[in-house]
Amino acid sequence: MRIGMLGTGDVGRALGHGFIALGHEVRLGARDAANEKAVAWARENGAKASAGTFADAASFGEVVVLATLGVANESALRAAGQEKLRGKIVIDTTNPLDASGGMPPRLAVAGSDSAGERVQRLLSEAHVVKAFNTVGHAHMFRPSFPGGPPDMFICGNRAEAKQKVGALLKDFGWGVIDIGGIEGSRYLEAMCLVWVLCAFSTTPPTWNHAFQLLKK
Amino acid sequence: MRIGMLGTGDVGRALGHGFIALGHEVRLGARDAANEKAVAWARENGAKASAGTFADAASFGEVVVLATLGVANESALRAAGQEKLRGKIVIDTTNPLDASGGMPPRLAVAGSDSAGERVQRLLSEAHVVKAFNTVGHAHMFRPSFPGGPPDMFICGNRAEAKQKVGALLKDFGWGVIDIGGIEGSRYLEAMCLVWVLCAFSTTPPTWNHAFQLLKK
Repeated sequence: MRIGMLGTGDVGRALGHGFIALGHEVRLGARDAANEKAVAWARENGAKASAGTFADAASFGEVVVLATLGVANESALRAAGQEKLRGKIVIDTTNPLDASGGMPPRLAVAGSDSAGERVQRLLSEAHVVKAFNTVGHAHMFRPSFPGGPPDMFICGNRAEAKQKVGALLKDFGWGVIDIGGIEGSRYLEAMCLVWVLCAFSTTPPTWNHAFQLLKK
Repeated sequence: MRIGMLGTGDVGRALGHGFIALGHEVRLGARDAANEKAVAWARENGAKASAGTFADAASFGEVVVLATLGVANESALRAAGQEKLRGKIVIDTTNPLDASGGMPPRLAVAGSDSAGERVQRLLSEAHVVKAFNTVGHAHMFRPSFPGGPPDMFICGNRAEAKQKVGALLKDFGWGVIDIGGIEGSRYLEAMCLVWVLCAFSTTPPTWNHAFQLLKK
């Protein structure tokens, strides 16, 4: 499958690497086609990896992954070109973190709205699925934990899109729990903060943890 | 230890039963001393169990547990008498659920405030610890899940209070993760909604699940 990745940060590069390892083609999109991190990533990740602009990545992808800073989602999607995402699955991995008051961050959007819902409103003809937002980049691909695999909570308005994203998540090594429509992003973005705050439950902070849903 | 329980619903009775089973004394408080559920619960739970008003339970408890409907917290605490809770540990188990729009519910308080923070503001001289709010009443005491024990996420402003509540939680059968100050309630109350929405990820809905934090 062709994956368009919007964002060249830790999350974009880690997910891009995972998709490449699973045999997919990935174009890593940046604001600037000459973005050094994107060009270096493409060089390191072989023939199925390429770099380009946000618009290049959006055109390239059958599935497009939004991996920008949550507070930059709107400008990234406008740069990508909303019309290029029409009818496509867009995986929203973002959290609207505001670290202007120091660490730990807060949510810049919360309560009766969320980044996920905003992305779906901006891309009214795309099928947005919230995923990968409740764990750090180091454990997104092939998460390995005693007692694992961990579970990824996802939401979105279109069942077919969630099924496809769920299959990708299983390939990545996750259990998958579908919590319903995109408004569930309100709760999953807050859960990201629980994940962040868990890091500070140990001294020094550690980021090697992931959620699992125990069932019987 | 003497436990004052504010609330006679499923949560109050289940936690009360757990404390009794661990050898503590429990007074189950209701708005009305003749509350039939409280009187019946006390009769069924032996010599260490008693029933009374919110004020009776607040006076009785060395530790007081708030187990009312989240949207009724303020009136319950005013009926209990805020002065009776001065200097005590108050375990806030509540979620400000609003089911007026049908199921699943929404949060009546969210974003930059939470039920836990409101309780701490109302009881400025008590030591409020958020706990037991991310699982259903059926699994609060001795949770038994394959791959368990599950983890309870707690928060509060006073380390000593969280240590005591953490010890009680371990007696109840939980792993304990301290996510910091009481403002973490914003995220834990949202996480309750993830727990609720997970119920609807199966058809028919099932409520036999609990969170665990995998670590390495």
